[in-house]
Amino acid sequence: MLLTGTGRLAPAGLSPWALLVEEGRIAWIGPPAEAPRAERVDLGGALVTPGLVDSHTHPVFAGERSNEAASRLEGQPYTDGGILRTVRATRAADDASLELLVESRLRSALAAGTTTVECKSGYGLSLDQELRHLRIIARVAERLPLRVIPTFLGAHAVPPEHAGMAEYAAHVAEDMVPAVASAGLASFVDVFADSGFFDATATERIGRAATAAGLGLRLHADQLELTGAARLGVDLGAASVDHLEQLDAGGVAAMAGSSTVATLLPGPATVLRDRMPPARALLDGGAGVALASDANAGTFGAFGAMPLVIGLGATLLGMTVAEALVAATRGGAAALRRPDLGVLEVGAAADLVAWDADHEGAFALRLGHVRPLRTWIGGVELAAAARRTIST
Amino acid sequence: MLLTGTGRLAPAGLSPWALLVEEGRIAWIGPPAEAPRAERVDLGGALVTPGLVDSHTHPVFAGERSNEAASRLEGQPYTDGGILRTVRATRAADDASLELLVESRLRSALAAGTTTVECKSGYGLSLDQELRHLRIIARVAERLPLRVIPTFLGAHAVPPEHAGMAEYAAHVAEDMVPAVASAGLASFVDVFADSGFFDATATERIGRAATAAGLGLRLHADQLELTGAARLGVDLGAASVDHLEQLDAGGVAAMAGSSTVATLLPGPATVLRDRMPPARALLDGGAGVALASDANAGTFGAFGAMPLVIGLGATLLGMTVAEALVAATRGGAAALRRPDLGVLEVGAAADLVAWDADHEGAFALRLGHVRPLRTWIGGVELAAAARRTIST
Repeated sequence: MLLTGTGRLAPAGLSPWALLVEEGRIAWIGPPAEAPRAERVDLGGALVTPGLVDSHTHPVFAGERSNEAASRLEGQPYTDGGILRTVRATRAADDASLELLVESRLRSALAAGTTTVECKSGYGLSLDQELRHLRIIARVAERLPLRVIPTFLGAHAVPPEHAGMAEYAAHVAEDMVPAVASAGLASFVDVFADSGFFDATATERIGRAATAAGLGLRLHADQLELTGAARLGVDLGAASVDHLEQLDAGGVAAMAGSSTVATLLPGPATVLRDRMPPARALLDGGAGVALASDANAGTFGAFGAMPLVIGLGATLLGMTVAEALVAATRGGAAALRRPDLGVLEVGAAADLVAWDADHEGAFALRLGHVRPLRTWIGGVELAAAARRTIST
Repeated sequence: MLLTGTGRLAPAGLSPWALLVEEGRIAWIGPPAEAPRAERVDLGGALVTPGLVDSHTHPVFAGERSNEAASRLEGQPYTDGGILRTVRATRAADDASLELLVESRLRSALAAGTTTVECKSGYGLSLDQELRHLRIIARVAERLPLRVIPTFLGAHAVPPEHAGMAEYAAHVAEDMVPAVASAGLASFVDVFADSGFFDATATERIGRAATAAGLGLRLHADQLELTGAARLGVDLGAASVDHLEQLDAGGVAAMAGSSTVATLLPGPATVLRDRMPPARALLDGGAGVALASDANAGTFGAFGAMPLVIGLGATLLGMTVAEALVAATRGGAAALRRPDLGVLEVGAAADLVAWDADHEGAFALRLGHVRPLRTWIGGVELAAAARRTIST
């Protein structure tokens, strides 16, 4: 298949360009006039980008805390009470209904142009429940063309049946991480390393257990307070540290000198009326930057929101639209240690979206109201029915 | 029809409630147990609100300036060049293609829960072109169940064939306003009363011509600079002054003591990375406040964006979600001088939306990714096909 497209994400800013797909990968890319002979797919003047990579989501939960969101905006602070409320509702939900919820959420993401999605557990908080949630992610992933990267987030909050943070963190590190790794149910381990959740000692313990078990590490860091969790993530070799609303200049410098990606989440920062992470300083300093949704039960509820996230990146975060789009594709892929995704390069996966727009600026101008016209994953086009799914 | 719903917009915060529809209007509202006998529509636990009222849109244009939006976010300032670029493209478009564009945009609004929409001309800037655009609005309005309120915005920018602002404003006031009024093609006259566009003298001249012709007045005011246009609008008895990003405390006080509605447009303020209008001060001072989209060719491009606008109101503008929802319903209706719309009250139009949410907080939590499940306008339910239209 030879696909012709426009948009500034091709090598050297080439536009329009042609791209040859063979065996699910990009086999050639260059000027249309020099393209090899193959069956042609002409997309007219539509903007074509790599499929979006959402490198931070929490899709396994029952209930949506929309009433809590309204109360919080009337003046109540965000606390861990919210997460534990979701844990109770999710533990009470049976497998079939949870699986249906996860599938519906991931279909919304797919319909909105996401072709790779990281999915965290973390609303179970016991070994059995966390394994159940990771198995649900695996079963849904089997049914969908979407690329799903599972993350174990047992250290999301301290469940009430445990004596305290240190004791629960030891259980996560010594019992849960090895069990998840040996079941082959996760690629990454994540820790909510923030004030009131998991401290540096606990985070380091869980991080070292992840490394020992052969899993990658990612952290929720410096969202609620500047605790130094981002620097700790760099020291532990985390693939990504996420949130960073409170990151200071020293933290920016630490990120810029590392291979750890700074994953920015303007959705929850907006919903929580929080300060925005220092995107401009991170980009200007040379740090790797990803944009992701953080779709979850309590602080940002939309699973088809990556186009909006790009729009918020280009407005509230002070990125250019091109920077925001790169952060939501190549950046997300880097945060997942998948350099074969999110790029228009020879050898990369042929995950592509043609949009109802003629220029990337539409992601900003329409603040996310940009829809896929056609989507390919591994060179296989998504059926029209999946594209029409209404997002929530 | 007796409809049962939840949500805090019923009188006295009653929820759940039942509502009797007769001849397109709300004939009774009260506790479900006391409801009169009628054919029942049970909406389960779905949030039900009045249909959204978008009191500020510019739907008649050809071309979308998404590349300009991208350039601007890379550092180029917003100038009137943009409007005139759209004027050239729109003048060059034939009636049939313009009509199709307008219809598609209004269908997107309808599919996203807007039941009343104000539509401005203003990309024509000559008597013939402006009348053509208003006739296109009228023809599309005839085909759609949406309530359409047309506004003549001849004073959107000074077209190149005129000698200058004062001379063109005289033409607008003396020739165009009377012609539009006698053709019965507009309910309101609008003026872009801002620095670099129309000054106070020109605005007052056009405003008085509107009043003389029996048309209502609304102004684009205090967006680019604090020129005092909002106060001028109050003095001229405008139904609404819109934008207000630069409004100061004196302007807030003037609004609070008036019957002129402050229409806030967080969409373009976000896309332009502008400061946000003083929503909290306006609400706390007792001013009438509306939220609208300002969907247009160059500074905010989404016509199905009212759910997002509510979400931005509740986050970036510091409103509560209930305040934002009221501003996008009752507030928009007040800005259009239509107290029979946007409210759940006996005698009001039965324009209702049941949402895929159980609480108004979802508008904030999902930053606008909330969709209508069912929509009624004047008590008549919208066909499923119209609800499924994908928004852009």
